[in-house]
Amino acid sequence: MKDRRWFFRRGAAVVSGAAATGLVGRAGAAELAGEAWERVYGAGFTKYGQPSRYEQAGRHFGQPYGELAPGSGAALSPIEVLDGIVTPNPVHFIRSHSGTPDIDPKAHRLLVHGLVDRPLRFSADSLLRYPRITRIYFLECSGNSSRALTPQPAQVPAGAMHGNVSCAEWTGFPLRTLLEEAGVQPQAKWILAEGADSAHMSRSIPLEKALDDAMIALYQNGERLRPEQGYPVRLLLPGWEGNMSVKWLRRIKLTDAPTHTKDETSKYTDPLPDGRALQFTFEMGVKSVITRPSSTMKLAERGFHEISGIAWSGAGRVRKVEVSTDGGRSWGEAALTGGERSRALVRFRYPWEWSGAPALLQSRATDEKGQVQPLRREWLARYAPDARFHNNSIVSWSVDADGSVKHVYA
Amino acid sequence: MKDRRWFFRRGAAVVSGAAATGLVGRAGAAELAGEAWERVYGAGFTKYGQPSRYEQAGRHFGQPYGELAPGSGAALSPIEVLDGIVTPNPVHFIRSHSGTPDIDPKAHRLLVHGLVDRPLRFSADSLLRYPRITRIYFLECSGNSSRALTPQPAQVPAGAMHGNVSCAEWTGFPLRTLLEEAGVQPQAKWILAEGADSAHMSRSIPLEKALDDAMIALYQNGERLRPEQGYPVRLLLPGWEGNMSVKWLRRIKLTDAPTHTKDETSKYTDPLPDGRALQFTFEMGVKSVITRPSSTMKLAERGFHEISGIAWSGAGRVRKVEVSTDGGRSWGEAALTGGERSRALVRFRYPWEWSGAPALLQSRATDEKGQVQPLRREWLARYAPDARFHNNSIVSWSVDADGSVKHVYA
Repeated sequence: MKDRRWFFRRGAAVVSGAAATGLVGRAGAAELAGEAWERVYGAGFTKYGQPSRYEQAGRHFGQPYGELAPGSGAALSPIEVLDGIVTPNPVHFIRSHSGTPDIDPKAHRLLVHGLVDRPLRFSADSLLRYPRITRIYFLECSGNSSRALTPQPAQVPAGAMHGNVSCAEWTGFPLRTLLEEAGVQPQAKWILAEGADSAHMSRSIPLEKALDDAMIALYQNGERLRPEQGYPVRLLLPGWEGNMSVKWLRRIKLTDAPTHTKDETSKYTDPLPDGRALQFTFEMGVKSVITRPSSTMKLAERGFHEISGIAWSGAGRVRKVEVSTDGGRSWGEAALTGGERSRALVRFRYPWEWSGAPALLQSRATDEKGQVQPLRREWLARYAPDARFHNNSIVSWSVDADGSVKHVYA
Repeated sequence: MKDRRWFFRRGAAVVSGAAATGLVGRAGAAELAGEAWERVYGAGFTKYGQPSRYEQAGRHFGQPYGELAPGSGAALSPIEVLDGIVTPNPVHFIRSHSGTPDIDPKAHRLLVHGLVDRPLRFSADSLLRYPRITRIYFLECSGNSSRALTPQPAQVPAGAMHGNVSCAEWTGFPLRTLLEEAGVQPQAKWILAEGADSAHMSRSIPLEKALDDAMIALYQNGERLRPEQGYPVRLLLPGWEGNMSVKWLRRIKLTDAPTHTKDETSKYTDPLPDGRALQFTFEMGVKSVITRPSSTMKLAERGFHEISGIAWSGAGRVRKVEVSTDGGRSWGEAALTGGERSRALVRFRYPWEWSGAPALLQSRATDEKGQVQPLRREWLARYAPDARFHNNSIVSWSVDADGSVKHVYA
């Protein structure tokens, strides 16, 4: 269903039906009375604006990870109140391992060393001198949706479970530029990327990715990176699990093998049913989630409701998103915005006429490689019971007869 | 020059040259010493984040329009410190005629009336029920760059002159949907769109545009509209002069002719050399401006500098942007990001090796209709001396031997 005109025809038709059920009101002969704000001068100009006091679109705080790891945890994007595909900087999800360091950009340095011809040290200012590129990419923490692995389905907003994903327009330059400047030696096969937080969060990355599309990111959605997103400089690995896009980047070391840091051995591995564990699951799976309507919301009335959500794949473009309102018995194809972009969020929309009967809403994404988002039970069967990373399984929201939307396992 | 690989090859080569002149420093044998922030737990999570305290990317305040019009004026985007094509919401330019009204969305109504079969009144909540679309569009105030019409060239940052332009991802739905629901009568040829500010800023818009791509915008860059951008609902007319995208939209009246409101007669008209004035110049011209380097900046040293800026056209896509470093004697084609989008900002980039000699930087955009950004003298010849709208002429920045960048008329 790539023809958007079809969507609008169908949407408009449904809306016309909805109008009869109270979506809009007939206007009387009188025009609108002026409200109080139409009789006074409004507020003055601001240097740096803020949202309306009537809107609260703040992040969801994840559970802290305990006293042994202060500052470790996550703050998730409120995906249930956002629309489009760009996540505003103030609510881009945060996952950090030791809080947000307060970095003075004049003192910060990035070291490129190890198996290179010329070890190099860069100031933040010097990184601003390179020719830049701009790309729209999603970032997802590999622990996203781990809260949907609890024994009972949590009744929290969609963002509190699935909001460890965001999407931004990143500006910076290819990491390749720095590596070529340092001179990569033939034995180098991996890099170690390390952050300047006090946890020195660090990951091993295959050299092939580092020389391919890895970015040194300096700007996010037009502005300089914010502290919570790695100011003054972060790594960005399109489509790969979020913590590999190391924030507050202080060091790139060229190595002949993975370093096996604490952040890729004690964490971010996938336990399997046979007792072994997968290490280095880099690429994020194909995934989607309906954000509206979603868990904890309530449909005010029968009639037209747009089903809308986000989809993404670490492997490339999202080819299609299907939506079911009957728990997977039948599926229809949604309209996509952003489907032309690789490894960016896609917004999907699907018109729905709610009859007032109970319904079960699901979405299923397929990417350009033909990978299909798995059922929850299919996903669970692949891993050990304590697995909590890379959950890309289908999310189910039930709609009760009174319009309440609940999180269910189906 | 559509082949980006060419750009990167050339860019990388120039950077390698620049390395020898101090762009980076050789690292010693020692690794980096840990900075203070690497020895303490960082800051905790925030619901709603803010930029680094080391970055100041606030709007530029335009001159107020005098005591007769409190709240009338502009705050301009700091385009000289932004990159990419998305303008973050907090610094999207503002032009308002009576300040920013503090609108309670529960009380706000949008009336559709006049030459319609069924006058309709919409609450803000009811507008949120329609099936949505998402589009990236620029907005430009037709008074943008009027400050570049002063007798002497102002020495202020680029954004203070040319920052009455921004670009965002807008989500809402076609205005057409509401008009069709109200039933447009055959005599209707125009609409009047009116805002709920105390100025009741209003404009006449041809019905053809209203039924074509005009949007009812509800979200900007993912979030609900902010008060300064028309919360809870604004009109959005892609490519047309900014004040027609009426903010705080309270009324759409279908009419058989233009209403000739105060905002389209006493303002926003273009005086001609023969004493007449053009009314209803809707579409914004093809335009570009170099944002880096730009007025009031200083090049720190010779060697590689990326010349970068933004370009746009109300008529559709930007086909090419050419850059000159010798005051227009020779031109080279810049690399574009976003050139596939119609009526969105495009980011252009052009590699430049500064020899240390004085230079004169200019950019010239051409759109898909073949329209070319005019020279300043060509533009001035078209209008009366007191014209101050629709200035899309080429902007010139001089670079002195000491690296200072100045605004010049050339």
